[in-house]
Amino acid sequence: MSNFKSSGKRTIASETPNQIGKEVLLKGWVKTRRDHGKLVFFDLRDRTGLIQLVVNPKISEASYKLALEIKPEFVVEITGEVKKRPEGTINKELLTGEVEIEVKEIKIIVRAHSLPFDMGGEELNLELPTLLDNRSLTLRHPKVSAIFRIQETLAVSFRNTLRSEGFTEIFVPTLVPSATEGGAEVFPVDYYNHKAYLAQSPQMYKQIMTSIFERVFTIAHAYRAEPSVTTRHLSEYVSLDAEVGFIDSWQDLMGWAEKVVLNMFEDLKKKNESDLKLFSVSVPEIKKKIPRIKMKEAQELIFKRTKIDHRKEPDLDPSDEKEICKWAMEEYGAPFVFITHYPIKKRPFYTMPDSADPDSTLSFDLLGINEEWVTGSQRINDYDSLMKNILKWKNKPENFEIYLQTFKYGMPPEGGFAMGLERITKDILGLSNIREASLFPRDMERIDERFTSID
Amino acid sequence: MSNFKSSGKRTIASETPNQIGKEVLLKGWVKTRRDHGKLVFFDLRDRTGLIQLVVNPKISEASYKLALEIKPEFVVEITGEVKKRPEGTINKELLTGEVEIEVKEIKIIVRAHSLPFDMGGEELNLELPTLLDNRSLTLRHPKVSAIFRIQETLAVSFRNTLRSEGFTEIFVPTLVPSATEGGAEVFPVDYYNHKAYLAQSPQMYKQIMTSIFERVFTIAHAYRAEPSVTTRHLSEYVSLDAEVGFIDSWQDLMGWAEKVVLNMFEDLKKKNESDLKLFSVSVPEIKKKIPRIKMKEAQELIFKRTKIDHRKEPDLDPSDEKEICKWAMEEYGAPFVFITHYPIKKRPFYTMPDSADPDSTLSFDLLGINEEWVTGSQRINDYDSLMKNILKWKNKPENFEIYLQTFKYGMPPEGGFAMGLERITKDILGLSNIREASLFPRDMERIDERFTSID
Repeated sequence: MSNFKSSGKRTIASETPNQIGKEVLLKGWVKTRRDHGKLVFFDLRDRTGLIQLVVNPKISEASYKLALEIKPEFVVEITGEVKKRPEGTINKELLTGEVEIEVKEIKIIVRAHSLPFDMGGEELNLELPTLLDNRSLTLRHPKVSAIFRIQETLAVSFRNTLRSEGFTEIFVPTLVPSATEGGAEVFPVDYYNHKAYLAQSPQMYKQIMTSIFERVFTIAHAYRAEPSVTTRHLSEYVSLDAEVGFIDSWQDLMGWAEKVVLNMFEDLKKKNESDLKLFSVSVPEIKKKIPRIKMKEAQELIFKRTKIDHRKEPDLDPSDEKEICKWAMEEYGAPFVFITHYPIKKRPFYTMPDSADPDSTLSFDLLGINEEWVTGSQRINDYDSLMKNILKWKNKPENFEIYLQTFKYGMPPEGGFAMGLERITKDILGLSNIREASLFPRDMERIDERFTSID
Repeated sequence: MSNFKSSGKRTIASETPNQIGKEVLLKGWVKTRRDHGKLVFFDLRDRTGLIQLVVNPKISEASYKLALEIKPEFVVEITGEVKKRPEGTINKELLTGEVEIEVKEIKIIVRAHSLPFDMGGEELNLELPTLLDNRSLTLRHPKVSAIFRIQETLAVSFRNTLRSEGFTEIFVPTLVPSATEGGAEVFPVDYYNHKAYLAQSPQMYKQIMTSIFERVFTIAHAYRAEPSVTTRHLSEYVSLDAEVGFIDSWQDLMGWAEKVVLNMFEDLKKKNESDLKLFSVSVPEIKKKIPRIKMKEAQELIFKRTKIDHRKEPDLDPSDEKEICKWAMEEYGAPFVFITHYPIKKRPFYTMPDSADPDSTLSFDLLGINEEWVTGSQRINDYDSLMKNILKWKNKPENFEIYLQTFKYGMPPEGGFAMGLERITKDILGLSNIREASLFPRDMERIDERFTSID
């Protein structure tokens, strides 16, 4: 096996419709086998999708005998002729649905153990723990892998939008000297006899980098040691982060966030049509501008609509977010709305207060499909004000020396925003749990394997 | 400051050569001030580069008075007219060197503290500790920020090369259940009363994902708790990782690695000419193919050339790598060479042994400019052999369940490679220490600030 040599030039599944009448060499995994009388049908999976194989003992007796041994997930090489499928057997749902391969030779490259459950159906229909306990296998199901092709499009779209606007991509560390976003939800790391932490966000570093490149973005891992299990939080997630210097107004930032999100929708439509079809969802249509309302106005609206009075609450709770998205759907045709002016005590120390109402901030969340998609704000860019806030929030200035340098030596008006890649993926596809939108989700109960009490 | 409103549409420095005779609004940081008799000259820095400002009291007395207050790194808004520079004062080194701005109005947006050292020269000339202690400031120097524009090009080039060849970008976790690459050099994390570790590489996950997408890549953070300080290692670094399923031969992988690296060189030439000029370096030229030789052949060559006998050593040491790059330079015109067939005991447990010589492996390093640039290999893709090796290497199979699933259910012949982004950046630019090629380098002595004994 180790010095394995393949037997010729490979054709990939997506190329077969253009090879009718030709002999091709295909390689991939067997997805399903169906025996029909004296014929054996396989669906073969490769990186470009599925292609149907037909094994007919009249064409090759040896192949037919081997075919009867083959089970799902065997890795095989197939030589055969590309044929147009007979009328009535064309599968329009499949990219290669107009053709099939008449098999002349089969080679089994690697055998697979028997699967613990059926992987051949259009739906996988597994409970979440089973889905995750068998993650390396379940990811092979076309409806599961589609999630991550969509996720790739979202990340690439984020980068492309910003790069075309003069943003520079940066790579910043995740090992940090202290908790930056407040709260106790940080993971401590034993770092050469010192204490370090996993970054809750790339916030400090992207801000520093605006004083170098003005406009920066990064796709960073962020870590939250939240001691609870919800359907919308992960302990390690992918954060799409942008930061902009020399803003004319903090409202510019909502414009950037909106542009990023709308371009994501456009790119999904262009690149992932067939993936989206598997979930029977279409990309959200933002026909009008996304509305922008203050948090207090949102609370008034919710009170008017539901008679539930949250007007004295310092923040929106999940039911409020759902209700205000419903309002946006009714009034603007899409469940997207910017909520602005969150109160100071609900935002991190670096958030710019609103000079017209010093208890509130020049901050915003973009709510999308019932929950927070994007969070952003203008930042304090004056050294003295920032230092005051660090002390007020009971942080130690000596933990922020590198950060404070930026403001000591001249930082223009600036701000930025961040969004969690897995959450957006989940919401667009209507997944019920964010874990489905993470290749290998981390939470308090699991790192790949579920923890047992003796760990 | 908080509700700051800018006074008009901004022009960026790079646009000025096309705006001769027009009034423009510029924003940026003051890099230098030079007083010449009755004129004050500034270099203004924005995200696109530098532009010269001239303040003449005959044009604006108020601006002149304000100009005398302005020091380096002040953030300013400038209104003025774009003028062609007088013959003889044109600066060909500068993108905007044919024009200057005759200042009509200056606004100081943010003042800066006095700098701890001069930032105005072409070179920064600081010792490494000073460079890093003042990282947020020193990154603003054009010769320092250029390093990270080049680094961005390298990362983008890596992605573009692979995406155009059907690779899918994946996002995999950095919190892992156990050490995967062997050795004790892992950082432990307190994870909800369990022990977790920071990934030494995305190896397991990228391998798993080849069974989904065949061809995958990721730009991942990798962590090495190496208890030593060298000029070429970081405790957290950016790893460019690729993995390919259905390889015809393990040598294909060297082909992919070579393609990635050559495209990086091409992209640097296209995008970073002026950045490279600052370092007086040109991009390496690979005129012939990069040679491929076995480790034992390399040792023989070194012995022949130097009379130093390392032929019984299990690996190349830094002096060997330097010597063999020198050989490649002399014989092939560039200091790049693939070394293949490293011995089993020097490679991780998942490396495919060479069936023709079971003590050696189907592995390679690409040495570039005197050190390892890329490391790669074919992987064991047979479940039983892999299980045997996990036990032989004294790992616990229960820590590799998710990984082993992939091989249980059919994994084709596959392999991959990885390269450290900071190291390539350092070597291309001829930097003396890898810390200069990391925005915020982590090592055993520092996370942003140097550790003190009381941490």
